[in-house]
Amino acid sequence: MEWIQKTVTLSSRPRGFHLVTDELERAVPELARIRVGIAHFFILHTSASLCISENADPAVRSDLEAAFNALAPEHAPHYRHTAEGPDDMPAHVKAALIGTSLSIPITDGRLNLGTWQGVYLCEHRNRGGARRVVVTIQGERARS
Amino acid sequence: MEWIQKTVTLSSRPRGFHLVTDELERAVPELARIRVGIAHFFILHTSASLCISENADPAVRSDLEAAFNALAPEHAPHYRHTAEGPDDMPAHVKAALIGTSLSIPITDGRLNLGTWQGVYLCEHRNRGGARRVVVTIQGERARS
Amino acid sequence: MEWIQKTVTLSSRPRGFHLVTDELERAVPELARIRVGIAHFFILHTSASLCISENADPAVRSDLEAAFNALAPEHAPHYRHTAEGPDDMPAHVKAALIGTSLSIPITDGRLNLGTWQGVYLCEHRNRGGARRVVVTIQGERARS
Repeated sequence: MEWIQKTVTLSSRPRGFHLVTDELERAVPELARIRVGIAHFFILHTSASLCISENADPAVRSDLEAAFNALAPEHAPHYRHTAEGPDDMPAHVKAALIGTSLSIPITDGRLNLGTWQGVYLCEHRNRGGARRVVVTIQGERARS
Repeated sequence: MEWIQKTVTLSSRPRGFHLVTDELERAVPELARIRVGIAHFFILHTSASLCISENADPAVRSDLEAAFNALAPEHAPHYRHTAEGPDDMPAHVKAALIGTSLSIPITDGRLNLGTWQGVYLCEHRNRGGARRVVVTIQGERARS
Repeated sequence: MEWIQKTVTLSSRPRGFHLVTDELERAVPELARIRVGIAHFFILHTSASLCISENADPAVRSDLEAAFNALAPEHAPHYRHTAEGPDDMPAHVKAALIGTSLSIPITDGRLNLGTWQGVYLCEHRNRGGARRVVVTIQGERARS
C-alpha cells in the first residue's frame, strides 16, 4: 500500500472550462508505479471546481460555460453576498453544483478515463489567479 | 488491506434515471469479505452519470428526469456543440451537474446505504447504449 | 494503514446551508493520528446533502439557499412525487445536484481545507430532523 500526496498549482486561467488532464498527470509521475488505486484531486478554493467532461470538441467547453452562466446568472435579485463583484456569488453556486473534488480510478499506472473523458478546471471567477489542488494517490504498487 | 477492481457493463437503458443498486452489488460479490472500506464507482462516459436518490417511488425517477430536462433544456440558443443531436450537449451539462463517480462506505460486507437510498444510472442520451463502470473496492478484510 | 469508521448524528437544523466543519472534526478525534489520508463523509439521506463552500460571510449561506430554491422550485408543474409535501421532490433534486458525499484529504492530522473552505450540511427539507453521516477515515499513521 502506497500513499503519495502533494499540492499542485495550476497556472492562472481566464473564466471558463479548461482541460487539465495532462497538466495533472505530469505533476504526479508517481502514478506510474501504482497497479490499482484511486487518485483524488481536491481544489482548495470555493469559486473554482473540478469536473470530467468531453475532451475533444472545444465547443463543449464554451457551451458548458454558457450553460452554467444560465444556471447561476450574475446580478440575480436574491444575492446579498455582492461585495467581491458580480461574478463571486455565482462562482460559489457553480462550485457547489459541480464539486470540489474528483476521484479517478488508477489502473496499471494510469488514470483510468474513458476515451472521451478529460479532467476540467472550471474557473468561475473573471480573475481567479493560480489555483491549488491537493493530489492524493493511494494504491497497490506494481511488482517491479 | 485489499484492492479489487473490475469494469462492469450496465445494459443499455432508455433515457432517464434507473435504479442499479442490485446490479452493481451482484457484480462485486467480493464486497462480502470487506469489513470496513470504500466502494468507488466511476462511469467511463460523459453523457451519463451516477447519483444516489430515493429508491421507493417510481415517480421520483420521472420527476428527476423532468427536473434535469428543465435545468439543461435541449435546443438552448447558446449551444454550439450540436452535431451529435439535440440531446448531446444537455447530456454533458447534466453529467457535469450530477457527477461521474460515487464513493460509498462499506460496512460488514455491504454497501452502507440509508434505508431510502439507491444508486442510479442517469442515462442522459436518447440512445446511450451499454455503459461501462469501473468499480474499485478497497478495505480491510473481515477475519474469517 | 489505518481504517476508522463511525456514524455521526448531526443535530436537527432548519432548511438551509449550515457550516458543520467543527462538529464533524470533533466527532473524529482519530484524525489526529493520520499523517496522510482521505476522510470520507456520506450522508444517509436523499433530501439533504454535503458540500464545500465559503466559510466566512453568513450571506453566502442564505444566497446558496436562494440560488438552489431558484434551481429546484417548489410546485413545479412536472412533479408527480408530491405526497410528502412541496419541499420533498425539490429536496431530492438539490441532493442529486450537490451530492451525497465528500472526500477531503487529510494532511498531518487535519482536514486539508483551503483558508476559505468549510463543510456544509445542506438541509433541503423544512423539517428534516437529525441527519446521520457515515465517516470513513483511512490513511497512513503518523510515527509516534
